[in-house]
Amino acid sequence: MESMTLSADVAPDQDRKGPGRPRSARVDEAIVEAVFDLLSAGQSADAISIEAVAAKAGVGKATIYRRWPNKEALLIDAVTAMKGPLPELQGESVRDDLITLIAAMRNKRMTDYGKVTACLMPELYRNPEMTRVHQAVSEPRRELMRSVLRRGIESGELRADLDIEMMLLCLSGPTIAQNMLRWNPNVPDEHFAEHLVDFVLRGAHA
Amino acid sequence: MESMTLSADVAPDQDRKGPGRPRSARVDEAIVEAVFDLLSAGQSADAISIEAVAAKAGVGKATIYRRWPNKEALLIDAVTAMKGPLPELQGESVRDDLITLIAAMRNKRMTDYGKVTACLMPELYRNPEMTRVHQAVSEPRRELMRSVLRRGIESGELRADLDIEMMLLCLSGPTIAQNMLRWNPNVPDEHFAEHLVDFVLRGAHA
Repeated sequence: MESMTLSADVAPDQDRKGPGRPRSARVDEAIVEAVFDLLSAGQSADAISIEAVAAKAGVGKATIYRRWPNKEALLIDAVTAMKGPLPELQGESVRDDLITLIAAMRNKRMTDYGKVTACLMPELYRNPEMTRVHQAVSEPRRELMRSVLRRGIESGELRADLDIEMMLLCLSGPTIAQNMLRWNPNVPDEHFAEHLVDFVLRGAHA
Repeated sequence: MESMTLSADVAPDQDRKGPGRPRSARVDEAIVEAVFDLLSAGQSADAISIEAVAAKAGVGKATIYRRWPNKEALLIDAVTAMKGPLPELQGESVRDDLITLIAAMRNKRMTDYGKVTACLMPELYRNPEMTRVHQAVSEPRRELMRSVLRRGIESGELRADLDIEMMLLCLSGPTIAQNMLRWNPNVPDEHFAEHLVDFVLRGAHA
């Protein structure tokens, strides 16, 4: 199965006319990194200004606005970059692909992202823009998980009447609770993805 | 099964010498309500001062310190009060008791609490005091859920090798994700507790 890439390309101008990375791609990266740094340092998305981003990236504001129509679009790319690329799935065992997806939510990058999101979370209530950012960033991953689950229903690995949306929640909810809140310290981090997926697959009934 | 009450009694002086509620219990309540109001209004737990609480409750600081040794103890009682009393369980069907516990996490009180917690969450990373508050407040509810699960293992309703800590996480994680983040809008609020419990009990395997 070919690897999936993010639909929001953080380097829109990719004319590779010479050796090395094109200047525009490096500029885009510097801008996105600047947003990432500001968010990681604890600044709220609300408080981040295009001026501050431009200053940190060492570019002019116009450079930013040429690439992103508004702050929201830039935030989506920055938060997407923080999450890293979509995981590559083997496309065979649904159990294995689910474990890959959950494990990808728990790497260091995501733990940092979890801390940033924890600080961003109050904004999800106050700021509709952040809700849209959050939705836009998480939607590709959710679709990926849905496609794995649909494949499992078709192959018979999962039950035919599986509630896909509830399954998404039952895999992501515990992962988010551990990432952001360390909700249950009695559940070990080691092999968390395998244990969670096997638990949800198996159920609790006798 | 007798109803369980919180171990942290918000009205320590209960000498009922005359009709109506004793003055000290009303004072305690006013103080706790004041903290509740300040938190609900979006003030961070860090920023809340005993002075501000005293002013809002219409009491002197000494009145507060007579009852609570420090701000942390007061926060624990206030957040506990926000959560409301522990739910009453019927003690028969484990499925029904789990549904009662999850549903209790999703009433309006808890949704308000969820919003407050969302705003408090950044503090869980920065402020060890808030982590201790959060742990102290949630521990009685976790113990209640653990006791229900142990009962289910003994009765044979749940499988003998059930991972109790993972089960706690798989019930609470999705509930928290919906409460705080509205993580999956495609999962309806109506009958959420029943659907979640039945899903986790049943598993996803064919």
